Amino acid sequence: MNTKAIVKDAHTEHHLGSSAFITDIVIGMSDGLTVPFALAAGLSGAVQSNGVVITAGIAEIVAGSIAMGLGGYLAGKTEQEHYQSELKREYDEVENLPDREKTEVRQIFEQYGFNQSTQNIIADELAKDKDKWVDFMMKYELGLEKPDANRARNSAATIGISYIIGGLIPLTAYFFTSTPINGLTISALLTVICLFIFGYFKSKVTGQPPVAGALKVMFIGITAAAAAFLIAKTFNKIL
Amino acid sequence: MNTKAIVKDAHTEHHLGSSAFITDIVIGMSDGLTVPFALAAGLSGAVQSNGVVITAGIAEIVAGSIAMGLGGYLAGKTEQEHYQSELKREYDEVENLPDREKTEVRQIFEQYGFNQSTQNIIADELAKDKDKWVDFMMKYELGLEKPDANRARNSAATIGISYIIGGLIPLTAYFFTSTPINGLTISALLTVICLFIFGYFKSKVTGQPPVAGALKVMFIGITAAAAAFLIAKTFNKIL
Repeated sequence: MNTKAIVKDAHTEHHLGSSAFITDIVIGMSDGLTVPFALAAGLSGAVQSNGVVITAGIAEIVAGSIAMGLGGYLAGKTEQEHYQSELKREYDEVENLPDREKTEVRQIFEQYGFNQSTQNIIADELAKDKDKWVDFMMKYELGLEKPDANRARNSAATIGISYIIGGLIPLTAYFFTSTPINGLTISALLTVICLFIFGYFKSKVTGQPPVAGALKVMFIGITAAAAAFLIAKTFNKIL
Repeated sequence: MNTKAIVKDAHTEHHLGSSAFITDIVIGMSDGLTVPFALAAGLSGAVQSNGVVITAGIAEIVAGSIAMGLGGYLAGKTEQEHYQSELKREYDEVENLPDREKTEVRQIFEQYGFNQSTQNIIADELAKDKDKWVDFMMKYELGLEKPDANRARNSAATIGISYIIGGLIPLTAYFFTSTPINGLTISALLTVICLFIFGYFKSKVTGQPPVAGALKVMFIGITAAAAAFLIAKTFNKIL
């Protein structure tokens, strides 16, 4: 549910060359399938009415997609602010404490075994252009790359919407069946197939081995659903 | 629900100097409060029995924490494998295509406006020690740092368990009240206070302004709960 990280992750994947939009859709859908499916499975062992399963599923999808979408949007803004404030600080340091910054550059290359004179050449060379110097310090010292605010926002929205669509898949079975257990049977079949398909594409767009990745996504979904089913059933007896 | 990113994020925060363990607890709890709270709120407007709200809440907590915990564990392993395979590839390249790798080093420094002769000095200097050269290419060319496998696993487990504890907070109110709407009133009061507290600490450990961050976490939780309430109520009438 840590949406800042999701957006960051999607952002990195963008650089890997896949279409960012497709990547976000696949991530949102494969994640969206998991928890709504497991929640519906859990309730199917505990309640008598498909209506309750559907209502709970809808409530989860709304809650989850808003937490992801809104959370991702706000996190994207925070990341942007963080980058700007660090950028300002680096410019101040380069301006006012150039010797200290040069020492930092030398230290970076010292760890790679560069001799003193090469360290000095690099530090002097970088110091010639303040913009590039700051750029180097941002990337190398702080590990920060310029965040794309629009991208973070669009990514959060796409992931949120795809989460909704993914989440509706396991619920559809409960519309066309008369008891939660029948709903669960069809929902599980349908969802496991979709988990495999979206897990496959998710792994492909995130640069993992696709079949192994698809099996992992499927395994997580099935484990979560089985655990939710058993615990909700047990709990319901006690209540 | 993209746990790979969560673990990565937690990993970065570890480097910021906060205790990694505390960071994971705070992240898990503040995230765990949001969706179970909103789900319970959604159901409160649609069903008549506290038992159903509690059962659905428990099912969501089980599903969410397994998706996060197991997902994080598997993602940590994948990240480790990815690092190892890229490391092997870099060693191969440095061994078999040293000229191409040297050109890549020169290109990196070309973008910072270094002249040809300095580019050559850096490339030659790096080439003296293959381990350090590979280390440099991994960090600079690929942006990869050596992942800590144990850390990823422990982090996923801590976040998952904290999600359970955070998720139980909004549910407690439904144990001690007789109708879902009464439960919701107390749950909302309790959860909003906790969202502020955990949002405050979450922002502190992730290096954001704490009060603004706390308000954001609170705002996301309230929006998700309000939307889930309205949509579940509307949907329930239609069903």
